[in-house]
Amino acid sequence: MSAAAPLAPSAVEAAIADLKVLLGERCSTTQADREHHGRDESPHPLCPPDAVAYALSTDEVSAIVRICRRHGVPLIAFGAGTSLEGHTSALRGGVTVDLSRMNAVLSVRPEDLDVTVQCGVTRQQLNTHLRDTGLFFPVDPGAHATLGGMAATRASGTNAVRYGTMRENVLSLTVVLADGRVLKTANRARKSSAGYDLTRLFVGSEGTLGIITEVTLRLYGIPEAVSASICAFPDIEAAVDTAIACIQSGVPVARVELLDTLAMTAFNRWSKSDHPETPTLFFEFHGTPAGVAEQAAMVREIADGFGGSAFRFAEGAEARNRLWEARHNFHYAIQAMRPGASAYGTDTCVPISRLAECIRGVFEDTRNAPFPVSALGHVGDGNFHMTFLVDPANPEEVRLAEAYNERLVRHAIALGGTCTGEHGVGFGKSKFLREEHGDVALDVMRLLKQALDPEGILNPGKILPEG
Amino acid sequence: MSAAAPLAPSAVEAAIADLKVLLGERCSTTQADREHHGRDESPHPLCPPDAVAYALSTDEVSAIVRICRRHGVPLIAFGAGTSLEGHTSALRGGVTVDLSRMNAVLSVRPEDLDVTVQCGVTRQQLNTHLRDTGLFFPVDPGAHATLGGMAATRASGTNAVRYGTMRENVLSLTVVLADGRVLKTANRARKSSAGYDLTRLFVGSEGTLGIITEVTLRLYGIPEAVSASICAFPDIEAAVDTAIACIQSGVPVARVELLDTLAMTAFNRWSKSDHPETPTLFFEFHGTPAGVAEQAAMVREIADGFGGSAFRFAEGAEARNRLWEARHNFHYAIQAMRPGASAYGTDTCVPISRLAECIRGVFEDTRNAPFPVSALGHVGDGNFHMTFLVDPANPEEVRLAEAYNERLVRHAIALGGTCTGEHGVGFGKSKFLREEHGDVALDVMRLLKQALDPEGILNPGKILPEG
Repeated sequence: MSAAAPLAPSAVEAAIADLKVLLGERCSTTQADREHHGRDESPHPLCPPDAVAYALSTDEVSAIVRICRRHGVPLIAFGAGTSLEGHTSALRGGVTVDLSRMNAVLSVRPEDLDVTVQCGVTRQQLNTHLRDTGLFFPVDPGAHATLGGMAATRASGTNAVRYGTMRENVLSLTVVLADGRVLKTANRARKSSAGYDLTRLFVGSEGTLGIITEVTLRLYGIPEAVSASICAFPDIEAAVDTAIACIQSGVPVARVELLDTLAMTAFNRWSKSDHPETPTLFFEFHGTPAGVAEQAAMVREIADGFGGSAFRFAEGAEARNRLWEARHNFHYAIQAMRPGASAYGTDTCVPISRLAECIRGVFEDTRNAPFPVSALGHVGDGNFHMTFLVDPANPEEVRLAEAYNERLVRHAIALGGTCTGEHGVGFGKSKFLREEHGDVALDVMRLLKQALDPEGILNPGKILPEG
Repeated sequence: MSAAAPLAPSAVEAAIADLKVLLGERCSTTQADREHHGRDESPHPLCPPDAVAYALSTDEVSAIVRICRRHGVPLIAFGAGTSLEGHTSALRGGVTVDLSRMNAVLSVRPEDLDVTVQCGVTRQQLNTHLRDTGLFFPVDPGAHATLGGMAATRASGTNAVRYGTMRENVLSLTVVLADGRVLKTANRARKSSAGYDLTRLFVGSEGTLGIITEVTLRLYGIPEAVSASICAFPDIEAAVDTAIACIQSGVPVARVELLDTLAMTAFNRWSKSDHPETPTLFFEFHGTPAGVAEQAAMVREIADGFGGSAFRFAEGAEARNRLWEARHNFHYAIQAMRPGASAYGTDTCVPISRLAECIRGVFEDTRNAPFPVSALGHVGDGNFHMTFLVDPANPEEVRLAEAYNERLVRHAIALGGTCTGEHGVGFGKSKFLREEHGDVALDVMRLLKQALDPEGILNPGKILPEG
């Protein structure tokens, strides 16, 4: 079937009948199940699948794929449903493969600093599992995401500036291909020049080239010392310039997060704290006790040069955890600033020297916005998110938020950046892909899709723009 | 034309005639030029192309590719010719595209810690160019390689343990595709989730999917302090165990190189130094003055626990440069240990916990070897090289070296490792690819090759095994 052909109801029914034989009650067609799986955490509209198949093993995923392929029925992989660009919407119906029950940590190898997990294991679950090993997995997108989903969207988050993104931290994947065959993308060697980089081909492919079922990840020793500090600035440019200078000076910060005035207000209310409500950077330093003290001193000196004040340490693990927990709950904290509003979030990333310019541009563009606008960013990477607190019942506000986002994305691309630093494309960003990458790159991406999913059954309508 | 079809002499002649119109004297068919381009630095036999085309720009490479494609003539990309698995051999004749004259540094952006170069710029040339910026490019394969060639083979070398390989350090590539179109793989954002990872698809593709013509690379600040130290061990296992323990303890060493007794003897003779001739680790530490002192102290403590002695610092930049220069010249130093011999080098990489076992295995296997055998490794990554000093005129020695290499590779794969950590596949390693990756991965690699080079004109016979 061509990617855009309508789905014959009889094909879906036949596939569901076969899936019920395979999975019994783990193939569900209830409205609740279908609706739960028809959206993610974004405001993109509900688009439910025809059925949900709960898989327990790679072999089962393979069997599900073979059934759907035989009937020409689309398959959408689903982890925790925390994506933000409609990645899990069943745009053409079909079967959502819920992988959340594949949540076993298969093998921890502390001596090699790596681990193999099933795709449904979450980041928190893994770090809890690792508690007694002295190791941790650093990539932290701030959502309770599964590691399979994080690999599929090339996720990153607050400490990518030090530890890299999923691109750098996935050693190997097990993937079920569109024809049901099971692919192991690589072995566990830290480096290899043995052929095409199949691991990176699937990291960020959002379920459109195959369904990731196992993930082997790099681990890191929990640093001997960790310290966090908070520094307030007179304006957002001073904060951004400080972050840029820290990176350019080579200070190995583990995290550097920007929160603007509104974000700090939301943060204070949510965490019942009393930080100055001005643009602020949160830093975290990892290393030896002497090393983190040295890093903090270097950052403080840089911040002083940009008018930073109130450089304070979050002393002790408890204070630090409170800080980052509140940061993780930012999505809820900011929504509480306008009850009933939806948080419409953006996700651009630019070369770091253009970051201040890019953020200034969006604040100028939105200065007359009829809704609150807030900036928050993993600024060490040049990656930031704008939040537009939109009344979802007001189509004019929704349209305006979309227009702001479009202009921001186009500005970021013009500055040499990307339409998405970490959320992925889903279908929300696919319209920007040609502008960002150009015709030839889009054609090459289509060739890859065609080579690996010739019948277009894997998460159709995602990443690549239609037509 | 199918990849294995014989090349019609008339097609080659017609292509050369067209190339001479395009390039004039920069299309050469002299025997000297052809033979120079028909091998690399390995003992793989000479296999010269029919002509050599010296390109000066991406547009010219595109025009060369279009001409060769029209006539069905193979194209082999050539940088400095320092590869080690026959990557540049013209197995089916055709035209070698010599890219060494494309050696302009196009744009240095210190504020973004990145640089764009033409593919023919060498690592040393780039670092010389950067001298006044306070920045450097760290990936150092120990050969005078071009950056295009290093990207194409996914090169790494001595300090990958700290800074990563070409996989982590290439931000974007310009690539001429098999149909002559010019692809830009990505923008300069430090991270992006915008579609398939085209950059990583071409890093390590060895000229079989496209010809890399420009490379955008990450740069790093030259560390405030650098120190190097040397530690001798009673046996090779103590040295390897020390390296493993350093990595497992999270000491951020910038380099950790193993040299066995024979390698140290060669090193002493070459550099006229008097280090103890026992298995030895060379370390380099990067950071602040306090940081490098702390790292060195941690490493010394670990080394002490494994019987390390003579822990000495190479004080000052001059002593350090002498140390690494001698290390870089190891290829010549070891060859001098058996005048007239060829250095047959291996390149396996295993999970670090299996490194001692893997090295022990090869020394057991070669204990009755009729030629000198030496181990040398970037042991922080689990990557090491054996050198067999073979008399090239003695077929029995050559056969034996090949047999040792085969058993070593199979052992490394069985231990969860790879047949090549950094040299690449060329045609020397293609016979191991199926054993390492399995049938499904090989099929996926073939699908990629087929999608991007359907006529099989790009570096035929490399990476993927025949048949």
